[in-house]
Amino acid sequence: QKMTSVSTSMRSSTRLFLLAIAFLYEYAVSTAAYKTENENITSKWQLPNFLILFADDLGMGDLSCYGHPTQMTPNLDKLAAEGIRFTQWYSAFHICTPSRAAMMTGRLPIRSGLAGSNWAGSVLTSSSRGGLPLNETTIAEALKQKNYATMAIGKWHLGQQGKFLPTAQGFDEYYGIPYSDDMGNSAWRPNALDVPLPLLHSTPMNITIVEQPTDLNLLTNRYAAKGVQFIKEKSAAKIPWLLYMAFNHVHTPSFVGIQHCNTTLRGRFGDALAEMDDAIGQIMSVVNKARADENTVVFFTSDNGPWLIQRLQSGSAGLLRDGKTTTWEGGFREPGIIRWKGKIKAGRISTEVVTTYDIFPTSLSLAGISLPSDRHIDGKDISEILFSDTAKTPHECIFYYKGIDSPGCLQDDKHHVCSGLWAVRCGAYKAHFYTRNYNSPVVKLHDPPLIFQIEKDPGESYPINQNTDEYKNVKGKVEAEVSKHKQSLMPVPNQFLAGSDISVAVCCDPDSKIRYPTHPKCTCNPENYKVDVCEMDYGQGNSISTTITSTPRAVKFEDLQEQITL
Amino acid sequence: QKMTSVSTSMRSSTRLFLLAIAFLYEYAVSTAAYKTENENITSKWQLPNFLILFADDLGMGDLSCYGHPTQMTPNLDKLAAEGIRFTQWYSAFHICTPSRAAMMTGRLPIRSGLAGSNWAGSVLTSSSRGGLPLNETTIAEALKQKNYATMAIGKWHLGQQGKFLPTAQGFDEYYGIPYSDDMGNSAWRPNALDVPLPLLHSTPMNITIVEQPTDLNLLTNRYAAKGVQFIKEKSAAKIPWLLYMAFNHVHTPSFVGIQHCNTTLRGRFGDALAEMDDAIGQIMSVVNKARADENTVVFFTSDNGPWLIQRLQSGSAGLLRDGKTTTWEGGFREPGIIRWKGKIKAGRISTEVVTTYDIFPTSLSLAGISLPSDRHIDGKDISEILFSDTAKTPHECIFYYKGIDSPGCLQDDKHHVCSGLWAVRCGAYKAHFYTRNYNSPVVKLHDPPLIFQIEKDPGESYPINQNTDEYKNVKGKVEAEVSKHKQSLMPVPNQFLAGSDISVAVCCDPDSKIRYPTHPKCTCNPENYKVDVCEMDYGQGNSISTTITSTPRAVKFEDLQEQITL
Repeated sequence: QKMTSVSTSMRSSTRLFLLAIAFLYEYAVSTAAYKTENENITSKWQLPNFLILFADDLGMGDLSCYGHPTQMTPNLDKLAAEGIRFTQWYSAFHICTPSRAAMMTGRLPIRSGLAGSNWAGSVLTSSSRGGLPLNETTIAEALKQKNYATMAIGKWHLGQQGKFLPTAQGFDEYYGIPYSDDMGNSAWRPNALDVPLPLLHSTPMNITIVEQPTDLNLLTNRYAAKGVQFIKEKSAAKIPWLLYMAFNHVHTPSFVGIQHCNTTLRGRFGDALAEMDDAIGQIMSVVNKARADENTVVFFTSDNGPWLIQRLQSGSAGLLRDGKTTTWEGGFREPGIIRWKGKIKAGRISTEVVTTYDIFPTSLSLAGISLPSDRHIDGKDISEILFSDTAKTPHECIFYYKGIDSPGCLQDDKHHVCSGLWAVRCGAYKAHFYTRNYNSPVVKLHDPPLIFQIEKDPGESYPINQNTDEYKNVKGKVEAEVSKHKQSLMPVPNQFLAGSDISVAVCCDPDSKIRYPTHPKCTCNPENYKVDVCEMDYGQGNSISTTITSTPRAVKFEDLQEQITL
Repeated sequence: QKMTSVSTSMRSSTRLFLLAIAFLYEYAVSTAAYKTENENITSKWQLPNFLILFADDLGMGDLSCYGHPTQMTPNLDKLAAEGIRFTQWYSAFHICTPSRAAMMTGRLPIRSGLAGSNWAGSVLTSSSRGGLPLNETTIAEALKQKNYATMAIGKWHLGQQGKFLPTAQGFDEYYGIPYSDDMGNSAWRPNALDVPLPLLHSTPMNITIVEQPTDLNLLTNRYAAKGVQFIKEKSAAKIPWLLYMAFNHVHTPSFVGIQHCNTTLRGRFGDALAEMDDAIGQIMSVVNKARADENTVVFFTSDNGPWLIQRLQSGSAGLLRDGKTTTWEGGFREPGIIRWKGKIKAGRISTEVVTTYDIFPTSLSLAGISLPSDRHIDGKDISEILFSDTAKTPHECIFYYKGIDSPGCLQDDKHHVCSGLWAVRCGAYKAHFYTRNYNSPVVKLHDPPLIFQIEKDPGESYPINQNTDEYKNVKGKVEAEVSKHKQSLMPVPNQFLAGSDISVAVCCDPDSKIRYPTHPKCTCNPENYKVDVCEMDYGQGNSISTTITSTPRAVKFEDLQEQITL
């Protein structure tokens, strides 16, 4: 079989390093939380597959179908044209880790202890002690009730320790990098002293470090190849499946494979987005060839808005204000596409307010699985919106957190503790209690809140006059909703307060941890291992100027080509 | 016949006022400028029809197919899906009159004396002496060579005097308002002292004032009805036709018919855009019913970017910088759609640089008519781009004028005369010599020029470092192109320097001009004439607060409904 032989050649050529950890697999799904249902095993292929395509730092304005003038994304445009394109789709947070925690669990990150330790929010690092708590129920764990085959590919960022990896959280298999692609030594930062960026491959019982540091140029192609393989195998076996594909693109750095180097009008950032779009084209093509089109619900979105400090290497929020790290619309609002051929009418555009954490309850609903009843789920089942032009959003309000209640907030002299809840959207209105722009350290307190009618004024330019009845009504409604929301919160351990410890960093060479306890080298590629990069191009006027010299690669691109041959 | 009876009922109910002017029709088409061609009269229906749908003050980000989150424009989206949607389409100017002059002639307004009298550029007023010079060749005049039936509907703004109206410039018929819908007394400014806004209906021999002031709420429906009638009649007679429909929307004020009142998420501005979209739907529907789909080239664009000082009543330039009245991209770049069923592949997106003044040479080319050879035509025949995915733009550079060389420029202390040429785009680069933001009086001189790579940086945020080779190469190229361009300019009379004269204002009551020579009333509606308006809604925080009380209409909406029944 072709796939088998490729897999063998890959194993030999990339020198897999086995982490000999007989670790205790804490598969702590709280099954008691579910109503179990009688399930006819023979009808399981009638259950829909779920394909979650997840981008990184993509802005509302980055795709051609969302209006970018020079970025062409034909495969994502096609996905939208065949399904429903949302224009008021919200992530749960303005940065990565908390946003992904919400997607996995259907719950705001404030509920899982992943909303950050200060006003800025936080992301996990290469040596974090914390992670997505195991008593949280992930979408993969939930779908396991109906024996879904589950795989996660790409960036995880919910804990790099074995006990927090996807394969400890309901996924049968994981292939990817455990945190962001700009973290640690790699071709991006070849002289960085921190632990090199690893590429992992794991099952619930085994964790393999494929490469450390990994070749950033190859990641997207490798991800696509793994995704293709999974879809083919599970579809052929008529096993319902969940595939979560979390691309590194368009997070900085924009490393791409040689075949995407200088192929777009938009520079290397454009190349990176085009590479992801192509990979999505490959994935959708295999869904089609596997005759799974009408049996697969496809979601596409991103974790948070564009990382504007990266200037020309950042995305665009379109007409929305600001981007990543802020509670302006540009930080939270995302492209959002759902396609289910034959079930969702093609070519729809929906202005209903929906969220990334709706993926969890919506998928469970479509699979006939009840929600956990022992916890608060913030996401909503939006399947009615998918099937009806007139259905309205089930969301009363959307909450924009920035960290949790804590000291450490820069502010004016009026207050001394910043609330973690910085903004709330109820209906067409959004109230800001605090704001901060991505390029300024100043946190601005708004008391009374700054209120916008966000459907007339999506750019948040014209605050509503505080002396109007409109303002007073909205303020009253928002205050009541915030109070209700706060009552639903339960205290949980803050995962970021667990701190970090180099000894729990992923390291392919345990010896180096002993020899260099503060800065283990953990570089397990062969002596002459080099990566051939598509030279970084930051454009003029960009503050970042790293350039990587082109050198031969250990892994030939041709090897990879085989894997993605369908 | 239905159309006839409706036309009669309209005449009786609206009290047409005949301007008894036996005016000399200066149909001064310089036919000598053309190469005449032998034309087989019987094959004339094989010539394509041209439908130019023209919006007012619409921004790059205003349509749903260009990414607006809460504005749905299903008919324009459909037009784009059936044709080609351009993402780098430029108007010729940042305000109305000059931009429209270029569309009509294929020439930059600097060549027809319509680029303005000062740094801001200018628009014609209700009593302007100037207009589009009669020695200019309009698209209508050019198509007359092949006996096209020609009609203009809507806002003209190239001279309100009879000698400058569309029917003096190659159009067989004109129905519309001769300048902007915010000029003069109307429901929008019921107490304004200047001449009330007239609705005209003219032929080359007759000018009728249908209403003065006109009922702003009814305009779009009336325009649609007139357009439908023209398309039906000419198509049925197999006469090739040119229809220029210049909507008042989305120029301030956003008056709409009752059936569009409060129908959108985006407030009254959204209602206005939806009304235009619906009217376009009606027009396209009659093109289809007349079996003219494959025989009609449809253009859609707008004159200039969003009028941002109108705040919530303005459009959006999406991710582009600034808007109307500026030479930033938001002032010049526009939605641009071309549909020709069966000839242009459906669903294309083109990033090629094209312009509104390409409509002139492209239409002539498709109709087999040679361009005037005695003058410089700035527009290009872009038909190759329409038929090929790989064709490149024929434009070397795009010129952004702001008035003509003249004093009167606000500036720093370095220079005393602002050039009329404020910016140039050559290839992917745009050089600014001067800039000014819409909300500031300060004109900024850039010497050396401020240069952006506009395809990587469409938001004009990151100027290229002046010390780089990239900068120096671009600067050299731009300077050479500007010099070449300046050599192509010929001195022409500036139409704005002709000034204004109340005696040439459109006035249905010549007596009132005599009795009130400085402020003639010119209100010829019956004593009890009232308009029923969809109450103005400027949203909170908007500086404009005019409110119009709802009153009975003289013209019943029901009368109009009949006309737009297909």
